[in-house]
Parts: sequence; structure tokens; C-alpha cells
Amino acid sequence: MTLPLGYRYASIYAGIRKVPKDDVALIVSDTLASAAAVFTKNRVVAAPVELARKHLRAGRGRVQAVIVNAGNANCATRTGELVALECTQAVAQAIGSKTEYVLPASTGVIGVEMNGGLIVDAVPKLVAGLDASRFDDAAGAILTTDTTGKTAFAEINGARIAGMTKGSGMIQPRMATTLGFVMTDASLSPVELRGALKRAIDRSYNRISVDGDTSTNDTVAVLANGASGSKPPLKDFEAALTEVLESLARQIVQDGEGARKLVTIEVEGASSDAAAEKIARAIANSPLVKTAIAGSDPNWGRILSSAGNAGVIFDPQRVNIDFQDVAVCRDGLAAEFSEDELKKKLDLPECLVRFSIGGKGRGKARFWTCDLTEDYIRINASYRT
Amino acid sequence: MTLPLGYRYASIYAGIRKVPKDDVALIVSDTLASAAAVFTKNRVVAAPVELARKHLRAGRGRVQAVIVNAGNANCATRTGELVALECTQAVAQAIGSKTEYVLPASTGVIGVEMNGGLIVDAVPKLVAGLDASRFDDAAGAILTTDTTGKTAFAEINGARIAGMTKGSGMIQPRMATTLGFVMTDASLSPVELRGALKRAIDRSYNRISVDGDTSTNDTVAVLANGASGSKPPLKDFEAALTEVLESLARQIVQDGEGARKLVTIEVEGASSDAAAEKIARAIANSPLVKTAIAGSDPNWGRILSSAGNAGVIFDPQRVNIDFQDVAVCRDGLAAEFSEDELKKKLDLPECLVRFSIGGKGRGKARFWTCDLTEDYIRINASYRT
Repeated sequence: MTLPLGYRYASIYAGIRKVPKDDVALIVSDTLASAAAVFTKNRVVAAPVELARKHLRAGRGRVQAVIVNAGNANCATRTGELVALECTQAVAQAIGSKTEYVLPASTGVIGVEMNGGLIVDAVPKLVAGLDASRFDDAAGAILTTDTTGKTAFAEINGARIAGMTKGSGMIQPRMATTLGFVMTDASLSPVELRGALKRAIDRSYNRISVDGDTSTNDTVAVLANGASGSKPPLKDFEAALTEVLESLARQIVQDGEGARKLVTIEVEGASSDAAAEKIARAIANSPLVKTAIAGSDPNWGRILSSAGNAGVIFDPQRVNIDFQDVAVCRDGLAAEFSEDELKKKLDLPECLVRFSIGGKGRGKARFWTCDLTEDYIRINASYRT
Repeated sequence: MTLPLGYRYASIYAGIRKVPKDDVALIVSDTLASAAAVFTKNRVVAAPVELARKHLRAGRGRVQAVIVNAGNANCATRTGELVALECTQAVAQAIGSKTEYVLPASTGVIGVEMNGGLIVDAVPKLVAGLDASRFDDAAGAILTTDTTGKTAFAEINGARIAGMTKGSGMIQPRMATTLGFVMTDASLSPVELRGALKRAIDRSYNRISVDGDTSTNDTVAVLANGASGSKPPLKDFEAALTEVLESLARQIVQDGEGARKLVTIEVEGASSDAAAEKIARAIANSPLVKTAIAGSDPNWGRILSSAGNAGVIFDPQRVNIDFQDVAVCRDGLAAEFSEDELKKKLDLPECLVRFSIGGKGRGKARFWTCDLTEDYIRINASYRT
């Protein structure tokens, strides 16, 4: 897969996280790029998110670089704004750009003061190491409890899209999630990019949940520098962007903390798409459903019960549920199926739950989550210490 | 503690659950009692809940007996209504009462047909075994994954109140929870009882969560047979009833599936009591908060972040958080505290989280939950099989 033209990447270990693993990533576009971003809806917002929003406004949707650190969320800290600002200033100076063209992003523990000097000191080395081929290095440096890097690519009308993301816990994005950066060499205006991102995010990042918690630092940014010279039809670009974001979002869930299975939930026959999404989200966030799937237990009663808690009106007696394409519930009642065979199918690394309501409703939604295992607890009972 | 006068209890193993442990409980009042009950708000409602509601209406708030089984929720079953009806008919006939004066309740697995014949056949023996001293036996027979029986008692103006409940998982009652039965020999009308129950439930059962899942069978019923001859002032009775229900609700959380710690969350300074309750519930339902507490990790950043997801407006920079009466966050920032000492305090079996917002807000709420441990996963990955 060819990377988008006109971008360079770098990563370094600056000492923000305790483990000596690259913890700062830098993404630079050779020319000023159009940019759009979506951020967390959490009432508690990290300093880099506030500053990134400010910079996007001040720069009128133009961005030249993104500076990201893992290991510290720079949220609920005394020096948060100052630290985020000095990091973007250092980058702007080193690459010969303006501070408002640099987007900051952070991920990691909340409530611990971040030593911005570590990043500022690392910037010259970071910039010296910039290279068009170091995409994977940058993608690796933004990870926290992730067990694998998460990238996705697409091509559209001779333009390329490359995305990287992180995320494994505290995952229930609303309008955005955790961190995601997408570079394209297509030619698009900031306004076009914003519209495409908004719609694409709603069908990808906003449709996943690991644990129902929305982070304070969620940021997804898209940069379009036009280096390919291609200006694809907006609709086609949006479809390609959606494909990349959906792939990244699914990779987050697949790598959910302690997860062994990727769970896809499809709801149809609801009164509206919004109602379908509520039902899908309620199923996806039920710890009882998620533990049953961890145990390969076709306990569809828990699916029906969690859907009943979605705050949406539907007739339980018209509900059909399929697990791995096996009918387990018809008209709200148990269907005949071989429990042993289904248990075997549920041992697979991917699990499909289809929840359909008979009748006239045309609302549907797709949602992704993961199973809930003992390892989620192990990881989170001792994350900080 | 003296039990309320005029009630008899019995329990038996009828073969509904696989383990040979009593699975049917019968509560009988010597005379027709005033009764009030609250039921699940889940959109999917079990047959015994539907029938109990119907009987309460038909009997104009008068009840003589309650028949409860564990091991099968009788929900999402073909024969649900019929089974619930035949159980109440059998009891009515055996004790010489009317069917509409008998309340049914069930708890256990959802979506499996229940063999009502097992209960019907057991009724004569059950009735023969009725005794005023067998309160604890009945309280034991309604348990499922509970590890201990849950009872609570109060006295008010010479009248007595005795309550029993069950519940350990699928616990986030809204308007009621799981199963709870309260007997009193105070003299109250059904209308008086309904008002007292509604208000008492809102401060007890509706303020707990184990896993954020509301069951399909939640039922709390209060019977008042007047056998003591005492008619306490309604306000005093309500306070005593609240005390009993709060004790029962706390016992459920304390015995939450896999739980090792009872967590009390106190929120103050919110714009309204409802806003405070939303914040408290969001903190209580955050798996990240609950796993941190399991690991005795004073990770207050997760508390702040989960509160930020409550859908309530507050100023993060005015938030103070205390853990076990130790200040961990002041004005939204880290406070100075000894991490080692606090970790030791968090190893205690009870944990107090205080979340207060500075300013003019007077809204407050108290909420109870438990920590989230590997054992929750173990219990629920194999509950049904």
C-alpha cells in the first residue's frame, strides 16, 4: 500500500511513560493541509483537546503538524494548557511553521502533571528523524494498553488515505474517540473535510464500545494536503474515509482490554436508525452479554433483557435473535438449536449478534464491541501503579 | 428481633433449579393484608410480573400470599402466563383464598420454559410446612447467585417490619429491583402503603447498581396486615420502611457478583438532586472506577472522567474528590496525599467516594455499588451452563 504523498513521520522515547518505548509521535505535512477533527463529548476535557480546538479555529482549518504523546493525558493538571502550548510552539519553530498550525494530542493517565520539557527537548531529534517511511513508528508511539498497532489505508481516484489510531480501554466514543490521525493527499477544502469526517465518524468510531467509558482526550483528526493532485468526488472520498475509520474503529474493539473476541451487533426493524443504535449500544454495553460471549454461552435471554433497557419502545414478542447465524430466539421465545454446535461457533474470534424486530420498522444500526474477560479486570485494577 | 405478627413462611425444593437447594418460597398472611409493589422498568417484562400487577389491581391492593421461585425467571417463555397463573391458583386453593390475592414472582434464567407442575405439585407440602418461625427458610429459597441471605428488620410504634431480598447480578434497579418482600403488622391502607413504598424505593433500591443491567423480573412488594393493632404515623412508618429497604439494597450490592467491597458514592453541590444522582450513577457504573477500587488504586482521574460522562453540566475545576476521607482531588487537580497510606485504606471492605462540586448547587445523592473483580467474569461467563 502506497502512503499518501507529502507527509513525514517520526517517533521518539522522551521519557513520559515509565517503560522505555517511544512515547511521542510527530506527523508533518510538507505543505499546509486542510484539516478537520472531532473531539470528546466528555464534560471533563483535557488541555490538548482545548488547544487543538483553538488552533483549528485560529488556523481556519489548516494544519501542518500533529504532535502526540502517550503515557500522560495532560488532563486535570495545573500546567495543562501551558504544557500543550509549549509543545506545539517547539514543533512550529523547528519545522518553520506557525503554532496554530500544530495540533497537540495526549493520551494516558489523568490527573498527573506532565513534564512538557521532556517533549520540548526531544523536538529537535524528532524533527531530524522525520521520514516519509516512518508511518508505522509514529503509529506505534501513540499506543498505551494496546497490544497491537492499528492502521488502515484506502485509495480513491489516485489519492491515498492512511490512518492510525490507538485505544483499548475507556472506549465508548461519542462524536470521536481516543486518538486517531488520518492523512490523505487528496485535495479537499477544510469545509468539505469537516462534513465528510462528521458523517464518517458517526458510522465508525461512534459505533464502538469497549467498556462504556468515554475518555477525556478523544481526538480524531484528518489532514488533506492535496499532494496527489487528485480531487475525488466528495461522495467517493467520504466512502473511502468511512472505510478507513471503520477499519480503525474495529481494530480498537478487537484489541479491547482483555478482549478475545470481536463482537458485531446488527439491529434491524427498529422505529428509527437512532432507536436501533440505542438498542445496539445497550446490548454492547451489557456486562452480562459480554461475559456470556466470553464464556461462549448462547445466553440470548441477556441480549433480550439488555435491549429492554435501551429506553426504546419495541414489542418483545416480535424479536428474533441470531447468534453466529443460528436462530436462538424467534418471536421472543427460544428457538430450537444445537447448544453444543453453537458453543463451538462462539469460540471463534469473531461473533455476530443479529437482533431484528418484526413489523414495519426500518431503523437499523451496526455496532462493534468485544467480550469482557478476567484480563480486563487485571489490566485495570493496576493500570496506574 | 421479633417478626411481624400474623405471617407464616415455608420453603421447599421443587426441582426448578438443578442444585438440590430450596427453590420455592411461600409467604402467607393470616388475614388479607394491604399491599403495594413496584416492578421492573425493563421493556421486556416477565410473566409473573405482568400477573402480579394484574392481581394487585383485581384485588384492590389486598394480598394474602406471595409465591416465589428461584432458578427460572419465567420470562420470554411460551407458557409463562399459564404457569404463573396455575401456581397462584394452586396456592389460593390450598390456603382457602382467592387467586387474585396471591402474588407470583420468579427469578433465574431467562428464555427457558418453566415446569409449573413442579410448583403446583409442591404446594400441598409447602402449605403444610407453613410456620411463623420459617422466615429465614423462605428468605434462603429466593436466592440465586447470592452468597448470603439478605434480611432487614425495624420496629415502629409497636409494629414490626421484616424484609427479605435477593440479588447479586443484573442489578441496576429502576423503580424496583430483583426480588424483595417486606412484611409488616402495622395497620395501613393500600394507598398509604403505595406512597410510602414509592418514596422509600427511590432512596434505596433505585440507588444501587452492581453491573448496570436492569432485570426483567424486578419486584418489591410490601404487605401490611395490621396484626399488631398499631397504626404508626405515616411519616414514621415511611422512615422505618426506608431503613429496611436501604439495608436490603446495601446487602445486595455488598453481595454483588464477585464483589469484595461495598462502595458508597456521595455527590453534593450539583445543580439538583437529579443531577447529583446522574453523576453518582455514572461513577458507580464505570468499569474503570470499579476495577481501580478492586485494585485499591486511588485513580481519581477515572472518577472525574466518568462524572464527565453523566450528561450533566458542572465545572470540572470546582470538583473536590475524597477517597476514604482522604482528599485526592481539589479544584479538579491532584491533591497531596500519601499513596501508600491510601492504598491500605482502600483494602478495607467498605469504600467511600465523595464527589463535591464547589459553588451554589445544593443537589446531592447517595448511591451504592461494588468493585468489579475477576470473579464477576467467572460467575457470568458460565452462569447458564
